[in-house]
Amino acid sequence: MDLNQVIFREAKIQDLDRIVYMLSDDVLGSKREDYKQPLPDSYINAFKSINSDPNNELIVACYGREIIGVQQITFTPFITYQGGSRATIEGVRTAPSVRGKGVGSELIKWAIQRAKKRGCHIVQLTTDKNRPEALHFYEKLGFMPSHEGLKLHL
Amino acid sequence: MDLNQVIFREAKIQDLDRIVYMLSDDVLGSKREDYKQPLPDSYINAFKSINSDPNNELIVACYGREIIGVQQITFTPFITYQGGSRATIEGVRTAPSVRGKGVGSELIKWAIQRAKKRGCHIVQLTTDKNRPEALHFYEKLGFMPSHEGLKLHL
Repeated sequence: MDLNQVIFREAKIQDLDRIVYMLSDDVLGSKREDYKQPLPDSYINAFKSINSDPNNELIVACYGREIIGVQQITFTPFITYQGGSRATIEGVRTAPSVRGKGVGSELIKWAIQRAKKRGCHIVQLTTDKNRPEALHFYEKLGFMPSHEGLKLHL
Repeated sequence: MDLNQVIFREAKIQDLDRIVYMLSDDVLGSKREDYKQPLPDSYINAFKSINSDPNNELIVACYGREIIGVQQITFTPFITYQGGSRATIEGVRTAPSVRGKGVGSELIKWAIQRAKKRGCHIVQLTTDKNRPEALHFYEKLGFMPSHEGLKLHL
């Protein structure tokens, strides 16, 4: 595939089925997601919340008519760092058919450019320690694993 | 001090000077912050952005008339985890005069309760690996260091 032909844009509601499919088609994702027809309302409600929030962008990578990747970018103003904004990347996934072809890197590079355009001073994300290959992937893109990422499930 | 007398509320613009002072009064914070009179506009602008965003809450801990702690909580809808919302805690700091007295724990417990009220299924945060005591602090509160926290400074 020609990476120059991949287009990035905000997701539409019609893309949601494919997005949830991609998120569920993964070792960790298969335990967390509930991909079925029709899609559970919880996904649709989350999409609407993201779509109506100017500080959240759900971005898909498209190749021709096919959606081959997804990520969510959240922009947050903080008091720390003299009042700077940060971009947080979450839910990055590419379709199995294009894995290893550089689409994931292009997604993250796109997010970094988007963060710069929005005046952010940090791009951040957390990655599960059960995905060592993902850590290496992000380090190659310039991210530093300077922090512990802690989660508390309620 | 009597922890039962500590009150938590959303920060007001009048609290901002004290908040920035607390954030700057710290080994890592002293390198990042610019506490001076008058406060740089960047802090005021960040405060206004947070204050006008229903998904961001800047919370102070008060003891009598004194502000003794601060944290920011961001609520984010995600497609992952079947469309759940998460609370992210950032910029937690207590005043030196009350360190070791349990105010930090009360702040985090308050954030957890707030996250439950808002229907979140995860509370998350990242902590700098240069603060090993902070990692232990959060683990005692039930957080699992399951993720690497990666940052890219732009």
